[in-house]
Amino acid sequence: MTSALIAELRAAFDDRCVTAESTRVEHAIDVSRHAPGLPDAVVYPVTTEEVSRIVAGCNRHGVPVVPFGTGTAVEGGVVAVRGGVCIDLTRMNQIVRVSAVDMDATVQAGVTRYQLNDHLAALHESDRSAPELHFPIDPGADASLGGMAATCASGSAAVRYGTMRGSMLGLTVVLADGKVVKTGGRARKSSAGYHLTGLFVGSEGTLGVITELTLRLQRVPEAIASAVCPFGDVDSAIAAAIEVLTAGIPVARMEFLDEVLIAAVNEYSGLRNEVTPTLFFEFHGTEDFVAECSRRTGEITSKRGGGEFRWATDRPERDRLWQARYDSYYACLALRPNSVGYVTDVCVPISNLAECLRRAKRYAAESRLPAPVFGHVGDGNFHVVIVIDKDSEDDLAEAQQIGRRIVDDALELDGTCTGEHGIGLGKRDILRQECGDAVDVMRQIKAALDPMNIMNPGKVLPDSPAM
Amino acid sequence: MTSALIAELRAAFDDRCVTAESTRVEHAIDVSRHAPGLPDAVVYPVTTEEVSRIVAGCNRHGVPVVPFGTGTAVEGGVVAVRGGVCIDLTRMNQIVRVSAVDMDATVQAGVTRYQLNDHLAALHESDRSAPELHFPIDPGADASLGGMAATCASGSAAVRYGTMRGSMLGLTVVLADGKVVKTGGRARKSSAGYHLTGLFVGSEGTLGVITELTLRLQRVPEAIASAVCPFGDVDSAIAAAIEVLTAGIPVARMEFLDEVLIAAVNEYSGLRNEVTPTLFFEFHGTEDFVAECSRRTGEITSKRGGGEFRWATDRPERDRLWQARYDSYYACLALRPNSVGYVTDVCVPISNLAECLRRAKRYAAESRLPAPVFGHVGDGNFHVVIVIDKDSEDDLAEAQQIGRRIVDDALELDGTCTGEHGIGLGKRDILRQECGDAVDVMRQIKAALDPMNIMNPGKVLPDSPAM
Repeated sequence: MTSALIAELRAAFDDRCVTAESTRVEHAIDVSRHAPGLPDAVVYPVTTEEVSRIVAGCNRHGVPVVPFGTGTAVEGGVVAVRGGVCIDLTRMNQIVRVSAVDMDATVQAGVTRYQLNDHLAALHESDRSAPELHFPIDPGADASLGGMAATCASGSAAVRYGTMRGSMLGLTVVLADGKVVKTGGRARKSSAGYHLTGLFVGSEGTLGVITELTLRLQRVPEAIASAVCPFGDVDSAIAAAIEVLTAGIPVARMEFLDEVLIAAVNEYSGLRNEVTPTLFFEFHGTEDFVAECSRRTGEITSKRGGGEFRWATDRPERDRLWQARYDSYYACLALRPNSVGYVTDVCVPISNLAECLRRAKRYAAESRLPAPVFGHVGDGNFHVVIVIDKDSEDDLAEAQQIGRRIVDDALELDGTCTGEHGIGLGKRDILRQECGDAVDVMRQIKAALDPMNIMNPGKVLPDSPAM
Repeated sequence: MTSALIAELRAAFDDRCVTAESTRVEHAIDVSRHAPGLPDAVVYPVTTEEVSRIVAGCNRHGVPVVPFGTGTAVEGGVVAVRGGVCIDLTRMNQIVRVSAVDMDATVQAGVTRYQLNDHLAALHESDRSAPELHFPIDPGADASLGGMAATCASGSAAVRYGTMRGSMLGLTVVLADGKVVKTGGRARKSSAGYHLTGLFVGSEGTLGVITELTLRLQRVPEAIASAVCPFGDVDSAIAAAIEVLTAGIPVARMEFLDEVLIAAVNEYSGLRNEVTPTLFFEFHGTEDFVAECSRRTGEITSKRGGGEFRWATDRPERDRLWQARYDSYYACLALRPNSVGYVTDVCVPISNLAECLRRAKRYAAESRLPAPVFGHVGDGNFHVVIVIDKDSEDDLAEAQQIGRRIVDDALELDGTCTGEHGIGLGKRDILRQECGDAVDVMRQIKAALDPMNIMNPGKVLPDSPAM
C-alpha cells in the first residue's frame, strides 16, 4: 500500500517527495537517544492544502503520518516506528500576518522562533511608532513553532510568559482524514465550544498535523536586568527562589544550576564562578522597575544566605553574568569524549522541589556517569543531563535507570514525568502511572479522531489498554 | 426509567434527593431569559463518590444529568431541556487544601469564589508570615468555582490574570459512565499526554461533571490604584486603551462604559460623572509601581484626548471612583420598571473593537429598548445589556435580534460569539458559523465520551450535524 501511495505522492509532489535513504535517515530521529525509525518517504509541502492531500492519501492507504519540524525534540516523537510518510514542514515557513495593535501573529508551522523574532524586529525597524514585539517562549533550540506547539514546549521564560498552550490563540489542523479545521481564532478569549486548540497543543502529532498557528506576542521589554547569586546548598537556593516568587516579584527567568554544572562551565568557558548551587535571574520592565526587582531579590537572597548578588542591565555585562547558563549544555557534553546527553525532564510543586533535587543529586553522585542538574526553578521544572558515551549500551541503560528513579520521585512528590519535553516514545510507559484512568479518556479521543491510528502511531499513548 | 432511578436515588440519598416542584422550579433556569426546563429530581451530593453513584445510575437508566452550581450563568446551561437528574453541587463546599508556598488550592466544585477568598484571608490572618493569596478571576457574581470552570468564566480581571482555563492545574471529573478521573495535577506545567483539563473547562457539563478543582492562586497586591477617565467618543477611548496595552502597562482591570450607562448610573447612584464614554482602570503592585502605572496611563489618556484622569489608592476613594462600574447592572435594570437584562457577550481583536462597539451602539440607538454598553476592553470583550420588560415577548424578540446582529458583526470582525458566558442553550445555532467543521471534531469527542448523550444534553453542540 505504501508503494502505491508513494507513487501518487511523487506524481503530485515531484522532487518534494524524497525516498533517498540519506533523507530518510535524517528524518529518523530527533536529538534523543531513542532508536531511530526510518520513514518510507519524506514529503515537503508548502501549504495546508498540500498537507491535507498527503494525509488524505495516507488515510486512503492506511499509511502512518509523522510530522517533522526541526528535529530538535528529545523524546523521540518524530521516530517513524512503523515507517510511513514523514511530512517535513520546514518549507511551510511563511509569516502570514502580524498585528502590532493586537499583539498577535499568524505563521505557518515551519516558521522557527528566531525567524519570527527577526521578522518582528525588522518590522519595528521599519515602523518605530509601533511597539516592538517578540515571541518569548524559549525552549533553547531554534525550534519550529509548529513543533513547539505539538510538544507544548516552554523553557526558561515560562515562569513569566507561560507555555505554548497559553500562547496559542488558534490553530489550523489537518485531521486524520485530510479534513482541515480551524480551532480558536483571533479573539483574546472565547467560551465558544470545546477548547480544541488546547487539545491539539501537546498532542505530538497523534491527533492531527498543525499547519498554521495564531500566536500571542509580547512587548520587548524596555529594560532587562540579569542577576546571579551563589548559595551554600540546594535548600537555601530553593528557599530563596520560593520567597522571590511568593513576594510577587515578576521574574522573567529564574534558573538553577548545581555545583557540578558550575564546575563544568567554569572549565568549558574559562569562567570563575563559585562552585556551588547558583541561581540566575532575569527581570523585564522599565529601567526603574528592573532595578527595583533586582534590589528586592538581592535582599531576599541575602536573607536566605546567598553570596554576592551581582546584577546588570547592559547587554555585555548581562551576557557575562549569564554565560554559565548559556553554555550549560555544551559544558556538560565536554565532560567526556564521544558524549551525548541523556536529558530528564520532571516538574514538581515548588514546595517539593528541594527534596526532588536532593534525591536526583544523590542518584547522580552514586553513578559513575557525570550528571549535572539545572532547572527552570520558578516552575518547579528541572533537568538532569546524564552524560553518556554515544556508543555505550551500559551507559544508556544506567542513564535510563537514573531517569526512571527521578520520574518516580517526581510522581511521588505530586509532580509530572514531563514538564516540557513531552511523552513521545520515551515516557509512554509512565503515562498511566501519572494519569491513571484519564489515559482511557485520551484513548477514546484518539480513537474518535484517528480511528485507523495513522497519526504518528506509537507515540504518547501506551500500547496496551491494560498497561 | 426515570421513576425507577429516582426510587434508587431516594433510597441512597434520602432527603437529599428532592422531587418537590418548588425545588425543581428553582433548578429549572439560571438568570437568563431562556425558557426554563424542570429536572425530574434534584440530588445534593457531598462527595465525588456520591456524584459518581448518581451519574452511574443515570447512565444505567439512560437519564440526563444536569450539573447545577449557583445558577448565576446567563446562557441557559442549567436548563433541564430533557428533564433528568439535576446534580446540585452547592453542598460540595469543602476547601480541601491550600498551599501558600505553591500558591495553589484544591476545592470541591461547590465552593464559591468569595468563600475561597474569605478562607484565604483568614489563613493569612492566622499566619502573617505567609503571603496573602487570593483567587482573582472575577465574573461579577459569587459563582461556584466548579460552575466557573464549566463555563470558562473570566470577567474584568482577565486582562491581567487570564481565564478559568489558565487558572486550573487539575480537575476531578465524573464521566458519563460514572467513572472518576483526575486530570492535570499540582505541577505548574506538564506535557504529559492530552490536555484534558483544558477540554473539560468550558465544556459546560456536556463531557463530565467537575467535582474538584486545583487552582492557581495569586498574591494579593500590596497596593491597588483605581483610575477613571472620560473621553469625547468611543474611538478615542478605545485608542487610549490600545495604547495602554501596547505600552506594556500591566493593567489589572480596564473597563469601558458608554455614555448611556454613565447616565444610568448617575441617575441610579446619584453620581455626577461626565456623561460620555469612560474608561475605568485598576493597577496592582507595590505603592510605587501602581503610582507609576497611573502616571503613565494618565499621560496616554491625555494624549488621546481624554478628560480629567482621576486616580486613587486608598480604598474609600477607589470605591468612589469605580462606583459607576460596580452599580452598572442594577443601574441598567432601573432604566425601566418590571425589567430584566438581556445580556450579549462578544469578543473581538482589540483593533476591531471600536468598529464593533460603534455598530452595536447604532443598533441600540435605533431600538426603542434601552441598551447600555460596557466591556472588559483590555480583552476586546464587551456586553450590551438590553433592558427588556420581563413579560414582553416583543421585547425579548427585539433583544434577540439585536444580540444576533452584534454576534454577526463580531464574527465578521474576526471575533467570537462568546468571550466568557459560554454557548449553553442560547448560542448553539451560532457555533458552526464561528467554528466551521471544528464542530464535527467537538461532536466526535462528545460521542466518544458520552455515547448515550446523557451529560447535559441539548447544550453547546447544535442539534443537527448538518446545521
